Amino acid sequence: MGSPVTHWSVQSSNPVQYEIRACQNLLDPSNSTILEGASDRGAQRRFIVTDRVVDSLYGERIRAYFEHHGVEHRVLVLDDGETHKSMDAVLRVAEALDAFGIDRRREPVIAIGGGVLMDIVGFAASLYRRSTPFIRIPTTLIGLVDAGVGAKTGVNHNGHKNRLGTYFPADRTLLDRSFLVTLHERHISNGLAEILKMALIKDARLFDLLEHHGAHLLRTKLQSPAAMGPTPADVPVDQRLAARGLHLDPATEVVERAIQGMLEELQPNLWEKVLERVVDYGHTFSPTIEMNALPELLHGEAVAVDMALTTVLAERRGLVSAYQRERILSVMEQLGLPSWHPLCTPEVLTGALRDTVRHRDGKQRLPLPVGIGSAVFVNDVTEEELSAAAQALREHVAGVSR
Amino acid sequence: MGSPVTHWSVQSSNPVQYEIRACQNLLDPSNSTILEGASDRGAQRRFIVTDRVVDSLYGERIRAYFEHHGVEHRVLVLDDGETHKSMDAVLRVAEALDAFGIDRRREPVIAIGGGVLMDIVGFAASLYRRSTPFIRIPTTLIGLVDAGVGAKTGVNHNGHKNRLGTYFPADRTLLDRSFLVTLHERHISNGLAEILKMALIKDARLFDLLEHHGAHLLRTKLQSPAAMGPTPADVPVDQRLAARGLHLDPATEVVERAIQGMLEELQPNLWEKVLERVVDYGHTFSPTIEMNALPELLHGEAVAVDMALTTVLAERRGLVSAYQRERILSVMEQLGLPSWHPLCTPEVLTGALRDTVRHRDGKQRLPLPVGIGSAVFVNDVTEEELSAAAQALREHVAGVSR
Repeated sequence: MGSPVTHWSVQSSNPVQYEIRACQNLLDPSNSTILEGASDRGAQRRFIVTDRVVDSLYGERIRAYFEHHGVEHRVLVLDDGETHKSMDAVLRVAEALDAFGIDRRREPVIAIGGGVLMDIVGFAASLYRRSTPFIRIPTTLIGLVDAGVGAKTGVNHNGHKNRLGTYFPADRTLLDRSFLVTLHERHISNGLAEILKMALIKDARLFDLLEHHGAHLLRTKLQSPAAMGPTPADVPVDQRLAARGLHLDPATEVVERAIQGMLEELQPNLWEKVLERVVDYGHTFSPTIEMNALPELLHGEAVAVDMALTTVLAERRGLVSAYQRERILSVMEQLGLPSWHPLCTPEVLTGALRDTVRHRDGKQRLPLPVGIGSAVFVNDVTEEELSAAAQALREHVAGVSR
Repeated sequence: MGSPVTHWSVQSSNPVQYEIRACQNLLDPSNSTILEGASDRGAQRRFIVTDRVVDSLYGERIRAYFEHHGVEHRVLVLDDGETHKSMDAVLRVAEALDAFGIDRRREPVIAIGGGVLMDIVGFAASLYRRSTPFIRIPTTLIGLVDAGVGAKTGVNHNGHKNRLGTYFPADRTLLDRSFLVTLHERHISNGLAEILKMALIKDARLFDLLEHHGAHLLRTKLQSPAAMGPTPADVPVDQRLAARGLHLDPATEVVERAIQGMLEELQPNLWEKVLERVVDYGHTFSPTIEMNALPELLHGEAVAVDMALTTVLAERRGLVSAYQRERILSVMEQLGLPSWHPLCTPEVLTGALRDTVRHRDGKQRLPLPVGIGSAVFVNDVTEEELSAAAQALREHVAGVSR
């Protein structure tokens, strides 16, 4: 019964290629990078999306840039912040795209903003006519090293972090670190959390850099000495650094190692067919903590709390020494990151783990640090173990802050 | 200026495989096809989505099926019809999924319904946790030969047909033609329109079958004589037919040729990287006509009007003879399809073409029939030509109906 009469098996493959490029002076009218690769068929038109904060700081320069190049454009300004990362925002983008009108493939949407904005715009672009190319220009550190690097788009929904989304990388991500000078220090810390994550799970050298230069990087907002110096801006950074007899300054090396490490993990698993991902470190309990604490915690802050908790959990399993745990918590402090939050109750943590288990298809697949710079996956964390780790973390943090 | 300092190029490929299978007696409790391929890890849970009409006809049997198999389940019932093909419906599915809770990969969502329902559920599944597997069980003819065959999901938005969506094929589509017996004849016609489309652009044999058997297929709702006969249901159709000394009955051949032709076109171009698609025939003016006429016209009816118009346009270009045009319009009538709609005004048609040009990235890429069973793409249709074709079609139709 139910024997197949006819059967078709369809096989295909979607090749994806995208580019991430470090640039300078992107908004300088004489710089044509943003418009590169455009076909010369007909007049240029561009739809740009940004947020209120970026618009207040850079809006005039953005408009002047496209005017200078004779590009008909519309700038849509969205509300900023995690609480506005919703399907409503995606639909606003779609409706504004309808009103402006763009050709399906040759007029990429341009997202200029932080991680939240890029996730919203990328999501809208992926859905609009089932895929419209877009370009990311991150203006925050978390955008530069995390949201701007991968293929994920998405919004929060029904109280769940990134519950709806797609895998749809921007054709190009253009990294211009000079945007970071207008960022509040707290948002630098926010991005440093994702950099610390990469350090902990796979890059001991990156951890050393953060340990030695973290406070300075935070204060100087990851501007390279060369970039801040008097060398003419049209000499590429590497040449300027070479001229000074340096290889790479810490800010550049930290950003590049973080991106390089992230891409090494993402490229072979862009569609997350494999659910054991070291880059999920710090993202087991944090989605629930972040959503429950909204708008109190930034994404990176919630990730830091998760990393502090799982570092202590790893210590209790003998995977991390007490000295290493101290170094990790101390680097977090240096980077301006929290390592504790009152939402780390047994109830919240078990609820968070339950949802993550669904997200990881029925298993915990929980990455834990092994020393500094390596990780392992475990599937057997119990409620009791979680509560004990949270209790121990609380005591460490109370001890440190006294 | 703006010289790249560092540059990463990410390359990856997303392999996709899906299956379409003709089956019988899918809802028979002794048939385990729907649950096949499920892992035996833990208890089975399934989330099923259907629409009001299907629920009223098959809801009890659907629930009984999962109960019989001891599968914990929830059936979400959506409003039916094109006017409910909206992002609201997608979000309802997502919220109900949150409430029920499913594991990310091993508990496929099951869509039982027509094209609209499958497009909504496929869209929701593709967005939920950025991709949740799903199974399609079409209950309409258009679902069997069109919406259930390809990779497209989507909803209407802001007055535009399928403006938002994704490419995300169901892991499996299970075709059971016995669902068609409860379909109103108008919905059989609706599906026959997409079959006629395949015939016109690439399959002269399929056109002949429609010309000779169309009226009968409509009346018998594409049930095979064997399937309706007294042969025991557990003998596969092909064996039953062979026993009768037949190869394939017209209903089976028509459905299989339509699906086969569709897959030949879709498989090499599943993500529509190539925008010249013969399967877009009948879909140049119809999206606008369908949306403007809502809820008057079914999708296939709007496609039929578009095909009638472009057949006449092709005739005026010498691509189709007057005799072929007559045969085409006469088959449409036999299939219960309209070939004219008052919205075929110069204004609506030029507006429709303008939007389609954006959708096809700045060019018309308009498929036109060449005789019967072949097509060509043109890019130079003018407003005057459109108006003249519409006028000529109107006269033909008026002549026929008198």
